Amino acid sequence: MFLNDWGLGMGYPSAATTTATVRPPPSEVLDRLSRVSGDRGHTGLARRLSELMLFLREDLGSFEASFGEKLETGDVVRDSAAHLLVRGGKRMRPLCVMLASRVGEGFDDRGVDLAVAAELVHSATLLHDDVVDLGDVRRGAPAARTVFGNAASIFAGDWLLIEALRRVRRAAVPGTLGSLLDVIDEMIHAEALQLESRGRLDVDREGWLQVVEGKTASLFRWVMLAGANAGGLSAEHAASLEAYGTDIGVAFQAVDDLLDLTGDADATGKALFADVREGKMTWPLIVALERAPEVAVDLAAIAGSPPGASVDSAAAGRVLEAVKRTEAIADCRTMAEGRIASAVARLDTLPDTPATRALATVAAAVVERRS
Amino acid sequence: MFLNDWGLGMGYPSAATTTATVRPPPSEVLDRLSRVSGDRGHTGLARRLSELMLFLREDLGSFEASFGEKLETGDVVRDSAAHLLVRGGKRMRPLCVMLASRVGEGFDDRGVDLAVAAELVHSATLLHDDVVDLGDVRRGAPAARTVFGNAASIFAGDWLLIEALRRVRRAAVPGTLGSLLDVIDEMIHAEALQLESRGRLDVDREGWLQVVEGKTASLFRWVMLAGANAGGLSAEHAASLEAYGTDIGVAFQAVDDLLDLTGDADATGKALFADVREGKMTWPLIVALERAPEVAVDLAAIAGSPPGASVDSAAAGRVLEAVKRTEAIADCRTMAEGRIASAVARLDTLPDTPATRALATVAAAVVERRS
Repeated sequence: MFLNDWGLGMGYPSAATTTATVRPPPSEVLDRLSRVSGDRGHTGLARRLSELMLFLREDLGSFEASFGEKLETGDVVRDSAAHLLVRGGKRMRPLCVMLASRVGEGFDDRGVDLAVAAELVHSATLLHDDVVDLGDVRRGAPAARTVFGNAASIFAGDWLLIEALRRVRRAAVPGTLGSLLDVIDEMIHAEALQLESRGRLDVDREGWLQVVEGKTASLFRWVMLAGANAGGLSAEHAASLEAYGTDIGVAFQAVDDLLDLTGDADATGKALFADVREGKMTWPLIVALERAPEVAVDLAAIAGSPPGASVDSAAAGRVLEAVKRTEAIADCRTMAEGRIASAVARLDTLPDTPATRALATVAAAVVERRS
Repeated sequence: MFLNDWGLGMGYPSAATTTATVRPPPSEVLDRLSRVSGDRGHTGLARRLSELMLFLREDLGSFEASFGEKLETGDVVRDSAAHLLVRGGKRMRPLCVMLASRVGEGFDDRGVDLAVAAELVHSATLLHDDVVDLGDVRRGAPAARTVFGNAASIFAGDWLLIEALRRVRRAAVPGTLGSLLDVIDEMIHAEALQLESRGRLDVDREGWLQVVEGKTASLFRWVMLAGANAGGLSAEHAASLEAYGTDIGVAFQAVDDLLDLTGDADATGKALFADVREGKMTWPLIVALERAPEVAVDLAAIAGSPPGASVDSAAAGRVLEAVKRTEAIADCRTMAEGRIASAVARLDTLPDTPATRALATVAAAVVERRS
């Protein structure tokens, strides 16, 4: 299997280095993941995730308290941002900052600022993406743009981006501000690539990877660097963690792509084929098309159906059948698991701390998630 | 008159501190302004503007050479940005950085980066504003969004914002990065205020000022601060220059408002009543409505007409007649001239340098411009 068997032994030591007085909320994602893992019989993973949740209980509390400062309302732009932010999210990126910094000297107030910044950048991209893709639903609720309008969502995204940069500046951790500006630049260029291939079916694996490395993996890479630098790790250790971030980022997107075809719309908040209807080719569809080119006609019909209309169910059925026949889901899962194995291998060069072991658990959880 | 009579004496000394090898392009705005001033018989101002152009010839060349680096094309987002950037602009904000830094120790490479950053932030807001307002024309050409799509313009605005911040970070002039993040935050909140009052006619002078200080004046304030700090001026002198920036920013917007009613569409690139049709109340209309409330009906009709449709010419005629009858144009001009007088008075506390005197010329030019 892809996951090193190095468990978490007797559980984690207490991780309290901050004095948050708020009640730490249960981390929705870990909770959900641990249930999924339990359901599937991965009791080892479920147990380790529960332990991880306990380990990071206070860190998550500090994060939520600080993140909550941005939930102020008062004008249409803040309201638009708050509409998205109150709906939580998986907090994958903050979690990565926490663990990376804990591989080093720990997660302090500077780490909190970096974790909040990462989640704000992620949220900013969601706000702008929903305007660009005319997305109606986000996190199981109406997208902010449908409630407060496109204009408010555009400015709300701008605002969160600026807030994120202010946090990183305040944290003043060496190497984090310049690298975040570079990463946002990468994210924007990946969006450009994606825009240009919109509605085109000729995207290949390499093209997919180029977009995903820029759009998704780059921010995962940054959170690992930010945490590493906040924790005072060496450049070499930081580089290993960055490589880990790129790997889990690519795997994370691959699982997202799977969920577009196999996911439960109630859990993901997304309709079936939502990605391809936004003009984005997913890994399983690239593989299916590569192995069964005749599926192009049906795929084009689905990609071409207007956002409001329902998908042609006969065409959808034939595409799903081709996906099954070509083992495209298995191919996608194998690719994701390969990246997770690579991510876990990167950890070998790091000091063996509870946080290092927790990063292996997080990597495993990435390919087990259902939403 | 509002302008101190302190002329420019024997012309400016040479201002070359950078070794730009490109041919400095004529500064379109100063050229145009100096023609306007000449036409109107302000030959003194015209002469001083010509001298100013000569004084800043090399600075403007350095600016354009550095700014041109961002004119790269290659993907739809860069193309979208370049489409706007190649069309030039008035370069008011870079000019302010040049002069403020020349009141101090001079305009060097750090100053160039700050000047480019200011123009990029300004350009980013234009790209996002055109998406928000569904603007079709910008700088006399089709708006980028009509050529490359809204999505590309949204990401292009994001990109220019990030590029601006990278430049400011590279310049590493104390006090400039944090203050620019604060200013962009102010600009976004002013956009929110404006969105909320969209299509409402009950905006008063105070409400107008609140939006304009955030949306327009804040960046003029920042360019003066940035130039002052790059030039090594004292905090006290920087504060005077910031106040100057706020004043000319407000006056600049007031003149913009005038041009919406009196401007030549060929020169401004904007149709008559464009602002109010985007839901923005302008100062002359606020005054007209205050003094002749019955004009509300016609104004509402104009504000409510769809972007594509032509304005009801009878309604437009009655509104323009009310504007004339209530002396709303004169009120707006008096307000603008008052702010310019205030701006010029701020300069009294500064060292008497050629750049200080040039700032008085720039202030005078703000209320003389026709586009």
